[in-house]
Amino acid sequence: MEKIKPRTLSGFMELLPPQQILFDTMVRSLRDSFSLYGYTPLDTPLMEAAEILLAKGGGETEKQVYSLRKGDTDLALRYELTTSLAKYVAMNYGRLTFPFRRYEIGKVYRGERAQRGRFREFYQADIDIVGNGELDVLNEAEIPSVIYRCFTSLGLKDFVIKINNRKVLSGFFEIIGAGDTAPHIMRAIDKFDKVGVEKLTEMLIADLSLSQTQTDEVIGLITHQGDPFDILDKYKGRSDIFDKGVEELAAIKRHISGFGVPDSHFRFDLSIARGLDYYTGTVYETYLANHAEVGSVCSGGRYDDLAEYYTDRKLPGVGISIGLTRLFYILQEQSMLSDSVLTSPSDVLIVPMTSDLSHAVALATSMRESGLRVSIYGENKKFKSKLAYADKLGIPFVVFIGEDEINNNVITVKDMASGNQTTASAGILTAGVLEKIKSRRANAPVEEKQAL
Amino acid sequence: MEKIKPRTLSGFMELLPPQQILFDTMVRSLRDSFSLYGYTPLDTPLMEAAEILLAKGGGETEKQVYSLRKGDTDLALRYELTTSLAKYVAMNYGRLTFPFRRYEIGKVYRGERAQRGRFREFYQADIDIVGNGELDVLNEAEIPSVIYRCFTSLGLKDFVIKINNRKVLSGFFEIIGAGDTAPHIMRAIDKFDKVGVEKLTEMLIADLSLSQTQTDEVIGLITHQGDPFDILDKYKGRSDIFDKGVEELAAIKRHISGFGVPDSHFRFDLSIARGLDYYTGTVYETYLANHAEVGSVCSGGRYDDLAEYYTDRKLPGVGISIGLTRLFYILQEQSMLSDSVLTSPSDVLIVPMTSDLSHAVALATSMRESGLRVSIYGENKKFKSKLAYADKLGIPFVVFIGEDEINNNVITVKDMASGNQTTASAGILTAGVLEKIKSRRANAPVEEKQAL
Repeated sequence: MEKIKPRTLSGFMELLPPQQILFDTMVRSLRDSFSLYGYTPLDTPLMEAAEILLAKGGGETEKQVYSLRKGDTDLALRYELTTSLAKYVAMNYGRLTFPFRRYEIGKVYRGERAQRGRFREFYQADIDIVGNGELDVLNEAEIPSVIYRCFTSLGLKDFVIKINNRKVLSGFFEIIGAGDTAPHIMRAIDKFDKVGVEKLTEMLIADLSLSQTQTDEVIGLITHQGDPFDILDKYKGRSDIFDKGVEELAAIKRHISGFGVPDSHFRFDLSIARGLDYYTGTVYETYLANHAEVGSVCSGGRYDDLAEYYTDRKLPGVGISIGLTRLFYILQEQSMLSDSVLTSPSDVLIVPMTSDLSHAVALATSMRESGLRVSIYGENKKFKSKLAYADKLGIPFVVFIGEDEINNNVITVKDMASGNQTTASAGILTAGVLEKIKSRRANAPVEEKQAL
Repeated sequence: MEKIKPRTLSGFMELLPPQQILFDTMVRSLRDSFSLYGYTPLDTPLMEAAEILLAKGGGETEKQVYSLRKGDTDLALRYELTTSLAKYVAMNYGRLTFPFRRYEIGKVYRGERAQRGRFREFYQADIDIVGNGELDVLNEAEIPSVIYRCFTSLGLKDFVIKINNRKVLSGFFEIIGAGDTAPHIMRAIDKFDKVGVEKLTEMLIADLSLSQTQTDEVIGLITHQGDPFDILDKYKGRSDIFDKGVEELAAIKRHISGFGVPDSHFRFDLSIARGLDYYTGTVYETYLANHAEVGSVCSGGRYDDLAEYYTDRKLPGVGISIGLTRLFYILQEQSMLSDSVLTSPSDVLIVPMTSDLSHAVALATSMRESGLRVSIYGENKKFKSKLAYADKLGIPFVVFIGEDEINNNVITVKDMASGNQTTASAGILTAGVLEKIKSRRANAPVEEKQAL
């Protein structure tokens, strides 16, 4: 038969078993972190009617959408999780209770140009709190705490959550007489960390026709050193929206320690703008302190209108998104994935040494009852091959049961790391193995050598 | 703005939050069960090059495939998980260790005619053990044990794993002189439980041209009452393949108790044939005893050649598949989903009774440290609305912190089920709540009233 060369599409991450276990450990950790804050899981379809998914229309993203047709229906694969949430909330409005907190960890699709570290199929991990008509700023103050817990639970130590407020910026542009160009200035500032002061100055003056004075004030604000509330105080009382923004930032400042985020891990940064007009209040970006070059690894913010394409109801909310596949790729590239996580398919390999396998089978069953992951090597191979199997898969413990063991009602356990072999009753050795395995299970998937 | 009516495609299961938590509980339980047997998780792409996915070609399934084109590439969404496994193993052959045990729980797509209980996007949960050139029958003996553990861990009690062997059937057809029509007889027998004896007899004689004697022998075999090994013994020594099949069945019989499957939960049933020619040895089907009408909820078997379309290497294996979305749908329809599982988004809702929220925030943080899922109600609503929020979401415990509590350094916890209110130190009440929550977390997602 003619064979078809097996391949995986470029831009589609497909992991080998040990890496997959690390990835799954990250997913499980994020699910647990989100749950601790009362976010409920959702799992929305990957495919939607094209008219639903493309309601927002226009833009770069639409070009990247995977579209298809089945029967009479134009379909599309989702390219983000927010649209699915908007549809879900608009559709189930009467059956949900607000504020509605949900998380979703799922695959999305973008037909981007293939390049290293860019994915066409990738996981996003999103949380959102959606209010019905209104939503208290306390929810915005809680978000950095969720980010902090997620990242520390993954094992990350050195990261900073940068926080700003788009009302502060909008109001500030109003105050300096540049309110009309606010969205454009916002997008220019969003590029600041990439382009620097000189280029930004040029963009503001040449492209956006700001005066030298206006430009100086903008640059002065976003490059302000020291406590940002000092410079904000100077502009107070001159724009309602500015004052409102400062008040919201102050509310976050007031609560963030109570929410458990240490001073070392957040910063109010007036240069954080976020490119999307969608955001209307607090905005967040998260940077790995030693790898700022990879950009923000968790971003989001407050918005006023989640589902305007589907409903007249005002559904304000706040949310963040982690590009999980990209984060995993970065951590792998930066050698930050821990090698202390157990990535073998089982904790114990049972190697029967007699042709009668019944003792091996019964032992496997009872070890599984204790919670150990156990496989039996049932193939008819030489002893050396059986040990090599455990070794290649990184299985930490091998159990031998030969005639001596059976006659004396004991088992022999080999600790593959130390090479030590112990013979004793199955009950005692199972308990000992379980203890060691449990301590390894507690290991976080990321290992960062230095703390901030 | 003109609004687009929000909708979800028909045939796409999208759950409300409490049901989603039950579904996720099932997924987590299956993952844990699979892991106990040393299966490693995989997560392969949902999309593949069309030539890869359709290598097998032909058949009903191909018509149902969702195809699309992006740039120059013909793409398709997977319609099962086995093709992805075959590609993966052929592609990563040199990097895997055999026998290779993997599980994958993921979405697949079939553009079936829309009807109740049929899904176009649905989860499959598959396990496979793939050998390199050969694979011991012990692996086939292990599979019923995995099924048993999966289903009992989900909370199911009344189910039966039916086991047969296609070599037994093939050999038997050889013995009665109908070896040439074996695959057709196999497919006819596969319909036996739907069509009955009379119709099957007619199919064998009229459609497959079997003689009356041959037909009687087939019907005699598959309707045999009592120990199937009794009737098998009568045909021994007349066909190598038959004898081999009986030997394999006997090996399973020998080990199945040791693997922990009680007699009540498995049965050797010579009428189980499975429709697919792909299977070459042991085959399995699993029935809910009180709902046999829904058909098999977990099926699979032994095959000789996993990846013949991609590689010359012989990769025999054994695997099973659970149609998880369909199973969930059935359990829901049959009112078998447990109402003792906690499906609220959080365990505790903190309701602040003062305008200063700092005590509420600090309490939430410390309760989360203990492992409780905690949300704070931060909206400026009447007291009644706050309680109604907890009630609607089924949150079991509400914590009040008013001025009295703050001054006396205590908190008040209301148990929403009993209505009881207790005031004491946060430490004592947190421990008490945690205890009660932990016992509810241990509840299985399925509740079956009667045991077999």
